[in-house]
Amino acid sequence: MKALRYEHEQLHLADVAQPSANGEALVRVTLSGICNTDLEIARGYAGFEGTLGHEFVGVIESGARVVGEINAGCGACPVCISGDSRHCANRTVLGILGRDGAHADFLKLPIANLLPVPDEISDAHAVFTEPLAAACGILERASIQQDTRVAVIGDGKLGLLCAQVMATTGASVTLVGKHRTKLQLAERRGVETTLADRAKPSARRFDVVVEASGSPTGFDLALDLLRPRGVLVMKSTFQGTTPVNAARIVVDEISVVGSRCGRFAPALELLRTGKVDVENLISEEFPLANGVRAMARAAEPGVMKVLLRP
Amino acid sequence: MKALRYEHEQLHLADVAQPSANGEALVRVTLSGICNTDLEIARGYAGFEGTLGHEFVGVIESGARVVGEINAGCGACPVCISGDSRHCANRTVLGILGRDGAHADFLKLPIANLLPVPDEISDAHAVFTEPLAAACGILERASIQQDTRVAVIGDGKLGLLCAQVMATTGASVTLVGKHRTKLQLAERRGVETTLADRAKPSARRFDVVVEASGSPTGFDLALDLLRPRGVLVMKSTFQGTTPVNAARIVVDEISVVGSRCGRFAPALELLRTGKVDVENLISEEFPLANGVRAMARAAEPGVMKVLLRP
Repeated sequence: MKALRYEHEQLHLADVAQPSANGEALVRVTLSGICNTDLEIARGYAGFEGTLGHEFVGVIESGARVVGEINAGCGACPVCISGDSRHCANRTVLGILGRDGAHADFLKLPIANLLPVPDEISDAHAVFTEPLAAACGILERASIQQDTRVAVIGDGKLGLLCAQVMATTGASVTLVGKHRTKLQLAERRGVETTLADRAKPSARRFDVVVEASGSPTGFDLALDLLRPRGVLVMKSTFQGTTPVNAARIVVDEISVVGSRCGRFAPALELLRTGKVDVENLISEEFPLANGVRAMARAAEPGVMKVLLRP
Repeated sequence: MKALRYEHEQLHLADVAQPSANGEALVRVTLSGICNTDLEIARGYAGFEGTLGHEFVGVIESGARVVGEINAGCGACPVCISGDSRHCANRTVLGILGRDGAHADFLKLPIANLLPVPDEISDAHAVFTEPLAAACGILERASIQQDTRVAVIGDGKLGLLCAQVMATTGASVTLVGKHRTKLQLAERRGVETTLADRAKPSARRFDVVVEASGSPTGFDLALDLLRPRGVLVMKSTFQGTTPVNAARIVVDEISVVGSRCGRFAPALELLRTGKVDVENLISEEFPLANGVRAMARAAEPGVMKVLLRP
């Protein structure tokens, strides 16, 4: 089968053996999505080698359409026994850590990781379940109430998903970005927007700021926007270190909170009810055979979700 | 009157006019303590110019012995009206921000900031009220229960206070430091200890880690010690930026929580009941007249609390 792989510091389309189920579920991938994490991995982030991709919709042997949570735990440690393998120390992660990913004709995952896709959700929307769940994961890490003033920094696909999810809580949400056309997508869903270079007057106004720009400068802007004792949610993973003025965190007693993966069920419900616009986040679809070109396209400025069809 | 001042990039003992009360309380300082923040300020941190010092015990006109909370708010903004001026945007802070400090014959503070010192507490112990309150402030920022596994990094005076305060909650506390003799002070109060270069086997074991070493390397060690979704409490203010591997915070969903000042009442109660050993944290006492030499002494490695007597 075909698979888009990163190995020996090179991204390439390979012909590899179809995985054998071995007690897990074999999924024929219908559509997969390229995430910024894929781009980071292809730059050497996290040292992963193998088939890329962790956003997908597919079909299992029974014919059911499925999506799948990407963390596969050991099943035996206390965090796994508690029913949440996301922080199992011995986990594998689809297309990220010790497990081949979704940019391929087939993938395998533990059966318990799979969720059926409701009929109302098209394949092109279902492929957003994973990043949308990641946006929903913020709600596990920061208390967002109706009177919480939330800012999201970054109008890329992750920021647009985060801003929309935050808005579903009834909180007042401001998206801070650099691209008028992208900001407009959020405005249609009741999100206020402001251009990054005009955000200054909002300084020290927000209870919660979500950093989803993937840029180290987003961190300083987030500190500017937060009120004392506010919460900064870090959503982007990127390579290297960020210079942090620790004294600001101490003096203003800021909480900096990392957020990675979310659960899929709430994301599927948001997709089913159409409460989050993902349609307008799709930039382009490529055949998997053109995966290398698709990755280059996804890395171009202004491009949002690029999909791969096996 | 005499005052130990930092101005024009120079630390010096000055003869200045005694402050006039002007609606505030005038306090004759009995004893003041040199904090690492004083040393940082004398290196140019925070751009403060004026009389240094924010740890003191003194006497007011009535003859009552007092200590005083160091943040003086505007009194009119929502945070001040809520009864907590620590995050008033227009606050002054004794010896730190827009207000002359305690290393002087007299200081002034709003009357509401003062608390009487119970008879059981000596002057030499009462001068620890402020740093001990700062250690107690951690409990406002992180949930510490009996089954919480807490590590404190740094066996300086701040770390020793933090470790002892954490231990009063009944939680199991480990102090990580570099000096056997200092670690022993904590051991006598039921704190486990470990040398920093032997802390590795405890990796990913702790629910809460308090960074009180004042060294940027303490931040990385703290991340090593924390379990996923653990809480890193940042207690030290120091100049400059810390290079932070943001991906670690995101992937392990760590909460990094700044902590600055605490309330004085719980600290006075700990001093009154003798639940925290401050006696052994005192290194030396100087007359205020030798304040410049005392500051140099306080900056020497291994030296703990240096007191100044006007």
